[in-house]
Amino acid sequence: MDKRPIGVFDSGVGGIAVFREIIKYNPNENIVYLGDTKSFPYGSKSKESIVELTKKGIEFLINKGVKQIVIACGTATSQALDEVKKLYNIPIIGIINSTVEYIEQKNMKNVGVMATAGTIRSNAWKNSILQKIPDANVINKACALLAPMAEEGWIDNEIAVLTIKEYLKDLKDKNLQALILGCTHYPLFKKIIKNELQENVDIIDTGEILSKALKKELIQNSMENNETEPKYEIYLTDTETNFKNVASKLLGNNMQEIKLAKE
Amino acid sequence: MDKRPIGVFDSGVGGIAVFREIIKYNPNENIVYLGDTKSFPYGSKSKESIVELTKKGIEFLINKGVKQIVIACGTATSQALDEVKKLYNIPIIGIINSTVEYIEQKNMKNVGVMATAGTIRSNAWKNSILQKIPDANVINKACALLAPMAEEGWIDNEIAVLTIKEYLKDLKDKNLQALILGCTHYPLFKKIIKNELQENVDIIDTGEILSKALKKELIQNSMENNETEPKYEIYLTDTETNFKNVASKLLGNNMQEIKLAKE
Repeated sequence: MDKRPIGVFDSGVGGIAVFREIIKYNPNENIVYLGDTKSFPYGSKSKESIVELTKKGIEFLINKGVKQIVIACGTATSQALDEVKKLYNIPIIGIINSTVEYIEQKNMKNVGVMATAGTIRSNAWKNSILQKIPDANVINKACALLAPMAEEGWIDNEIAVLTIKEYLKDLKDKNLQALILGCTHYPLFKKIIKNELQENVDIIDTGEILSKALKKELIQNSMENNETEPKYEIYLTDTETNFKNVASKLLGNNMQEIKLAKE
Repeated sequence: MDKRPIGVFDSGVGGIAVFREIIKYNPNENIVYLGDTKSFPYGSKSKESIVELTKKGIEFLINKGVKQIVIACGTATSQALDEVKKLYNIPIIGIINSTVEYIEQKNMKNVGVMATAGTIRSNAWKNSILQKIPDANVINKACALLAPMAEEGWIDNEIAVLTIKEYLKDLKDKNLQALILGCTHYPLFKKIIKNELQENVDIIDTGEILSKALKKELIQNSMENNETEPKYEIYLTDTETNFKNVASKLLGNNMQEIKLAKE
C-alpha cells in the first residue's frame, strides 16, 4: 500500500477528462494534477520545446511527492515520453502507449485515428502503433473542429452531426476494427460517431484505457492506495478563467481549489 | 522619408492576415514580422504573462531597427498596449484602437463584436469602445468555432453557413450600425455574414482599418518610405509547420523565408 498521490501532467484543461476517468477506475487514490496552461497548446510547438516543458512539469510533480506519473497530453506523450522515462526514476505512463498496448492485445490491424490537427501532424499515434504492430494499417483523420465544438457545448446539434459525418467520410467502409478517439474531448461525440460507423468498430476512449492500465500497474507493483476520502490537488502554470468552467463541468462535486504552480 | 521597416507583432499566425492588409495599403514599406508561436495563443493567458510576452516581442523588433510597431493581436493590444506605449520611445498602434477610432469618427453607437472566446472573455473590444464612446451599446458574441473552421478551409460549405447563422442569432434585429470582425480570420466569412444581416450594417475588417490608419500616420509623421522592391522578413519564436501553409496561402508570391527568433 502506498499513500503517495498519482501525478497527472497535461498541457492544459483537456487532461481533466483523463483525471475523471482515473478517479472512476482508481477511486482510492490521491491525485495531484498539473495543467501547463501557460504554454497551452503543445500541438504547434517543436519537439525540443515540448521535451523541456514536460521535464519541468514532471519535476514539479516529483517535488509534490508523487509515486507515479501519468502524461495525459497526447502531444507530450509522443514527443517526450521516451526521453523523460530515461531521466527520472519513477514509473511514467502516457496516454498513447496504454491504448497501443490494448490494440496489440486485441490483435487489431485496421485502425483509424481521429485527433487534433497538431496531434495528427506529429504522427504520434501512427508512429507509436507501427512501432508495436509493424503490419498495422493506420488511417489518420485530423478533426480540427471537434475540440472547440465540444468546448462550445455543441455536442448533439445539427452542426455537430454534419461535422462528424464530414470527418468520418474518409474512415467509413475501410473495414476498421478500432477507431481511436485521440483527443480527450471526443468521447462527448461517441454516440454520433457510433451511429455513423458499422456496429463492430471498437470506439476507443483513451482516458478509460489508460485508467484501467494504471489500476493494473499499481496493483502489480503493490503501489495501490485504500484512501476512503482521497485528496485531489489541481495546479495550473497560469490562471485561466475558462479552466474552472470546464473542470467543474467534468468533475462536478470532485472539483477542488485551483492553485497557481510557482516555478 | 524613412527607409526603416515597420515591425508587426502577433501571437502567432493570425497576424499574417493583417500583414497582407498592411502590404496592400502600404506597398512601399519594408516589414519585419514577429509571430510568437512558442506562446500562442494569448487568449487563455493572464494579463501579467501577456504584458511580459508583448514587451519581449517589441524589444526584439526594436533591435531589428523598426520605425513603427503594429500589434496585430487583439489580446496583446487589449492587455498590453497602454503599458508598452509608456515604456518605449517608438510609435505603436494596436489592432483594436484604429477600429475604435473609426467607429468614433463615423459616430456609430450600436456595435456588434464577433471574436474568439478568449478575446470576448477579456472584454477587450467592449472596454476599448466604451472608453472612447461611453454611450455606445456593444453586443459581444464569442464565436469559438470560426477561426478553426477558417483554418480547416470550410469557408463556404453548409456547415459554415449553419454555424454563422447560429452565431448571428443574437446579433440580428438589434439595429446594429457596425459589426466588428474581431478576429483576423473572420473576413473570410464576410460574404456569408453579409447575407445574414441587414444591408446597412458596416461589416468591419480590422486589418483593413488598421492598415489605412497606419498609412495616414506614416504620412503625417513624414515617416513613409518609397521602396519599389520592399523587403519582408518573418520571424517565429518556435518552428511551426502549419505556419508556412497558412502564410503562403495568405501571402502568395510575397512569401518570404521564415527564420527562428533567438532570444
